[in-house]
Amino acid sequence: MAEIIVMKAVNAENELYAAQVKETLDKRGILLINLLSSPGSGKTSLLEATLKEWGGKYRCAAIEGDLFTDEDARRLERFGIQVVQLNTQGSCHLTANMIVKALEKLDLKDLEFLFVENVGNLVCPASFNLGEHKRVTLLSVTEGKDKIKKYPKAFYTADLLVLSKIDLLPMTDVNLEDLKQDFFRVNPQADFLSLSVKTGQGLSQWLEKLENWRRGT
Amino acid sequence: MAEIIVMKAVNAENELYAAQVKETLDKRGILLINLLSSPGSGKTSLLEATLKEWGGKYRCAAIEGDLFTDEDARRLERFGIQVVQLNTQGSCHLTANMIVKALEKLDLKDLEFLFVENVGNLVCPASFNLGEHKRVTLLSVTEGKDKIKKYPKAFYTADLLVLSKIDLLPMTDVNLEDLKQDFFRVNPQADFLSLSVKTGQGLSQWLEKLENWRRGT
Repeated sequence: MAEIIVMKAVNAENELYAAQVKETLDKRGILLINLLSSPGSGKTSLLEATLKEWGGKYRCAAIEGDLFTDEDARRLERFGIQVVQLNTQGSCHLTANMIVKALEKLDLKDLEFLFVENVGNLVCPASFNLGEHKRVTLLSVTEGKDKIKKYPKAFYTADLLVLSKIDLLPMTDVNLEDLKQDFFRVNPQADFLSLSVKTGQGLSQWLEKLENWRRGT
Repeated sequence: MAEIIVMKAVNAENELYAAQVKETLDKRGILLINLLSSPGSGKTSLLEATLKEWGGKYRCAAIEGDLFTDEDARRLERFGIQVVQLNTQGSCHLTANMIVKALEKLDLKDLEFLFVENVGNLVCPASFNLGEHKRVTLLSVTEGKDKIKKYPKAFYTADLLVLSKIDLLPMTDVNLEDLKQDFFRVNPQADFLSLSVKTGQGLSQWLEKLENWRRGT
């Protein structure tokens, strides 16, 4: 099947660009975090909360992946950070060569954290390494209890699962312990956090995790 | 770019299979409905509610698209209908040739409604015609207010937008009228319904819509 052969070729090329991204950032000690989730799980809201809490404590930048529009970029620019908007024009995931191009538009000097917000899609982005140091997959409690089994790659390739909108847990059929078990079954090495940007619950653990990653612990 | 050329070739082939699906079903007067949404917007729950409400009033079958697992198929089989599970093994959307193969496994005699539940993904499935008579895109209120602008194709190719989990509206930042306006701006010909499978609100309008479609009105 021609389709599969092409996908492999694209992925091999993607790995070369990913290595280039990683090398560029490693030289400068910048931590790249790739945020991945379904549409509406709260990636942008989590970044907003992070930037608000830190209030300039760390030098951050963001690369926003969207099919169209620059709404998310504008939401983050309000915090005075550098933001590059990548519009994929309908393509369903970011690729590492897009990140290479975005890096050319950023002033990398003294940067500490670079957040990449992938296209909202729990399937395709999981297959594309962007040269990230850490991959964070978000899942909101309102998406239901079966998503880890049904979309495993986004979960078994993650360094951290953030269960978001935890304030809405009582309105759902999600059992927190069962969901954790499902996650650790596919990805026993990873970390798990639950949080709510609305109530602030769990946010300090998220910020601590980011700081620990940067310190390499 | 080789990637785009391949996509076009695949889509042309897909259109041939889609025409074959439609012809097969038209001959027998079976209405094919393609359900499309992000993961966790409530496609399976809506089908469960539909089958429960109808209680055998119409002869229905379902084709369930998932990357892996047969959980959704098992949820629907409880209603005594024929269900074919399509596992895409990681691929992010259904294609019409998968539907052709699924039709071979179904007894089409006297069938009235055939529901196809696409892979949970608001991006890729929008580009693949499955030979459906009607395309229904679901969006849950918990996915936030900006999804129509950000993922337009899933919305401008729909015959109906179902806004699901409307019981959770007060917990979100979604304004119902604004969202409707966003939708009708990209798709003025389509219909709009809001409902909650949990409370039953809006379900009767959904069932009426299905019956009207079948009568061709």
